[in-house]
This record gives sequence, structure tokens and C-alpha cells, in this order.
Amino acid sequence: MSQGPGPLVIIGGAEDKTGRCTILQEVIALAGGQTARVLVMTVATELPLEVGAEYVRVFEKLGVSDVRTFDVSKREDADVASAIHAIEKATCVFFTGGDQVRITELLGGTKMDTALHIANDQGLVLAGTSAGASMMSSTMIEEGKAETNPRIGIVNMAPGMEFIAGVVIDQHFAQRGRLGRLLSAVAQYPHHLGLGIDEDTAVVVKKSTFRVIGRGAVSVVDASALTYSNLSTVSENGDLALCGVTLSVLPSGYEFDLRERRPIPKTDTVSNK
Amino acid sequence: MSQGPGPLVIIGGAEDKTGRCTILQEVIALAGGQTARVLVMTVATELPLEVGAEYVRVFEKLGVSDVRTFDVSKREDADVASAIHAIEKATCVFFTGGDQVRITELLGGTKMDTALHIANDQGLVLAGTSAGASMMSSTMIEEGKAETNPRIGIVNMAPGMEFIAGVVIDQHFAQRGRLGRLLSAVAQYPHHLGLGIDEDTAVVVKKSTFRVIGRGAVSVVDASALTYSNLSTVSENGDLALCGVTLSVLPSGYEFDLRERRPIPKTDTVSNK
Repeated sequence: MSQGPGPLVIIGGAEDKTGRCTILQEVIALAGGQTARVLVMTVATELPLEVGAEYVRVFEKLGVSDVRTFDVSKREDADVASAIHAIEKATCVFFTGGDQVRITELLGGTKMDTALHIANDQGLVLAGTSAGASMMSSTMIEEGKAETNPRIGIVNMAPGMEFIAGVVIDQHFAQRGRLGRLLSAVAQYPHHLGLGIDEDTAVVVKKSTFRVIGRGAVSVVDASALTYSNLSTVSENGDLALCGVTLSVLPSGYEFDLRERRPIPKTDTVSNK
Repeated sequence: MSQGPGPLVIIGGAEDKTGRCTILQEVIALAGGQTARVLVMTVATELPLEVGAEYVRVFEKLGVSDVRTFDVSKREDADVASAIHAIEKATCVFFTGGDQVRITELLGGTKMDTALHIANDQGLVLAGTSAGASMMSSTMIEEGKAETNPRIGIVNMAPGMEFIAGVVIDQHFAQRGRLGRLLSAVAQYPHHLGLGIDEDTAVVVKKSTFRVIGRGAVSVVDASALTYSNLSTVSENGDLALCGVTLSVLPSGYEFDLRERRPIPKTDTVSNK
């Protein structure tokens, strides 16, 4: 795992913004509580003003006084000194939803990209929801079909922003029927664990483990122990046959060791073996 | 497996009725081809005339001249001699979609129920789609929430019609995001394999094996080797933690051995192990 000492909070989209705000409260707590300095990055969305304003309202309602927004609508925006300064000053950078390709195209390789990695290595909390979640990994799902069986052609992969290694992330997981596309994504590259994160649910990643928070669950899809597949013979857009995928479903409070590819036993839980 | 020598065709709903009709063609082929005698059972639906007429049109279009419909709107309908005679005369009984509880409530324990089991033991092809698929097993999903993580309270189980043992069937699987509810169903009773059948997809069951046909895939969810769960401590409506579920996804042409709980190797497929 390559991410720095700063935790990642990877959110499956549609996090609660009106009730107890469990996930956003956790983001704030990790970033220093009421003294957190939050920078909301709206690069993924084409509605930066509306989306940015909503997060400013929510974070302020939750007691954070220092909330700013930063938008990148052309690559030059992410190379100016004020952009680097904004990141250096923040204790948390929060990526909103939108289109993950906007993040990699507009931010990838800029000075702000470098600054984000340096800051995360030094403790910056990096949070992202929906598109802001997908872009966290080294290889990301760019786009794909939902509500389908796994097929070779239904998911397009692309390089991500490399804040976390070894995983491919999908969001809105249960709500949008994305098992098929996540299986398609990990089947060809079983090095990656597939993390299917439900809405209003997040993983908090520290070093090589994550903990689940929020209302839904995180499905971990591990294709490393496939007993059988048709990967070597299936044609483009052909149906995948995958046997022996290991699936774990973890609700709030459960932890997973990404390096060992297994859940971490919970003391109040009875093991069946 | 308790089903007789007559094959079962268990369809995940929304089977093609206007194009190549792969699944309905297979039903006809199993039942004797153009000389098949098909009885369409509309007991599951509250629109028996419309639904029945549609299947009569389709089967006739596919070359079957002897297609009849039979509806059961009260239990007495299923005890009359003409009902038994209709089943004895048929080479295939096809259960339409609707509500699986209507099937078990209106047909369960009637003389027609007995006649169906006897006829299936003697070679009758038994097909069912959607609700007509769910009712096939000994324990069935009565109703449940979709697009959610697995939770104890989200799925209601009920006794089914016992045409096949050892499985719990869910339909419209990928299309309606039903992984969570199928996991919930099998987690508590890992004796059952969960079969998640996509739309326009079916399993053809003969003895203790099935073969997949149609456009989508069948997901086999096996909770027998759970490495870890919170089943013994979770409360009603609590979130389930399930680790080590074995998942296999099988598209058209693939076979599965229900008794051995494993896919049957396919000669044109390369095993990874």
C-alpha cells in the first residue's frame, strides 16, 4: 500500500448530509475536529459552484469554520502557487462526486497532484465520494455498465491518481447493481481486490487496513483464488465464467487487512471456523 | 435433489418473447418439439387472461399447436378432475410470473400439486419464470428488499413447492441488485446454495446438475465455507458481516453440480489451477 500516514476516507457516494452525518463527522474528526481546515475539491463536477456550496454549508453546520472550495476547470488552474498553498494549509482535502475522468485529466500530473501526494504522506486526510472515491486507486473504473452479468467489454479501466495501491473501487455498489462490473474489473487483474462501497458508506484506510463506517456495507471481491474461468478463451464482449471468487461483505465497524487479503477478526464476533 | 426425471427450467424473468426466444425454444425442445403439449399455469398472476394469452401467442409462434392455459384463482380450482387431466396430458407445465405466494397458497397441497410432482417424476418438463422460478425450491424467498447490503430482516423466507432441494432461487438478479438479499437468505441456512438468475437467463436442471442458458448469467452463492460472520450476535435488522462466501458466475453453456457444490469443468475453458 502506497498511501502515506494521512488516512484516506473513500465514500461510496450519497453520504448523509442532513442527519447524523456519520461519515462527514468522521472526516472532520480525523482532520482535527472543529479546528479542521477543509478544502473541498470540485474538479470532478461540472457544477462546481452548487456542489461546493453544499459541502461548505454541511461542514460549517458540523462546526468547521475553515472550509474553502477549489475548482479546477483547466489544467493551468492546478499549477498556480495559490493551489499548492491551499493544499499545504489544509488538514483535509475532500473530493466531490462527478466524473472521475475529469479528476485524472485536469489534475493528473499537475503541481497540485504532486502537492496532494506530499501532503498525504505528511498526514493530510484525503477524502473522496463517488467519482472522488474511484480515482483514489492506481487503476480505476472509468465507466461501465450496471445491472449486468460480468462481461469482458462492460467496464473501461483507466489509470487513477494512485493514492492507494492494490484495489479497484466501485461506488453506489448495492444501489446500482454493480457486482457484475466489479467482477469484470478484477477478474482480468486479480492482483486488485475489488471494493464495492455502498451509498452512505465509507472505508477509512490507514496503512494497509481499512475500517468500514456508515449505513451500508463494503463488499470485498477477491479473484485471486479463482478455481476456474474462461478468461483465456472469451472474446470481446463475451460472457465471463468465474468460479471460486471469494466475497466478503463488511458493515460498519468491521476491518480488513488489504495486504493479507482477509478480514480482521472482531472480538464481539463469533468465527464459524 | 428430489426432482424427478423431468427436467426443470428455472427462468430469471423477462425471457425473450420476440427475438430468438432461446429459453422458450429450449423449453419446447425438452417437451417434445413441435409435438409438445404445453400447459401455461397463470396462478401467480392477477392478470391471468392477459399473461396467459401472451404465452399462448409466443408458444404458437414457435410452432407448438397444443398450448392451453390453466388458472387457479381459488383452491377448489386445483382439485377438480379436469385440472389433474390437464397435467397428465401435458408434456410441459409452464408457470408464469406474478407473486410466488399465490402459487404456494392457491396450489400448495391441492390434488394438482400432487399431480405435478407425480408427472414431473415421470418426465414432465416443469418450467417457471420469475415467481414461477422462486417457488420451485423447498424454501423460497417470499419477498425482500433489493439494492441493499445483507441484513437479517430484509428477506422473508417461506416454504416453496419442493420441486428442487438444496437451493434458494432469486430472479431478476443483476437487473434488480439482489445480491444483498440472496446473501441474507443463504447466510442463515448455508445448506442452501443461492442461485441468482439474471433476466432472460435460465438453469435447466437434470438430476443434480444444472446448465445455464440465455443471455445473462447465474450467480451461485455458497455460504458453506464462511470463514467469519456475525450471525450469532447480530440483532433483527442488523447488518450482516459475511467473510469467505464463495461466488461463481456462470454464463450460457456452463454447468454446475449441485450436490458437489462446484462447477463442472468445461472442455473449452482453461482452469486456473
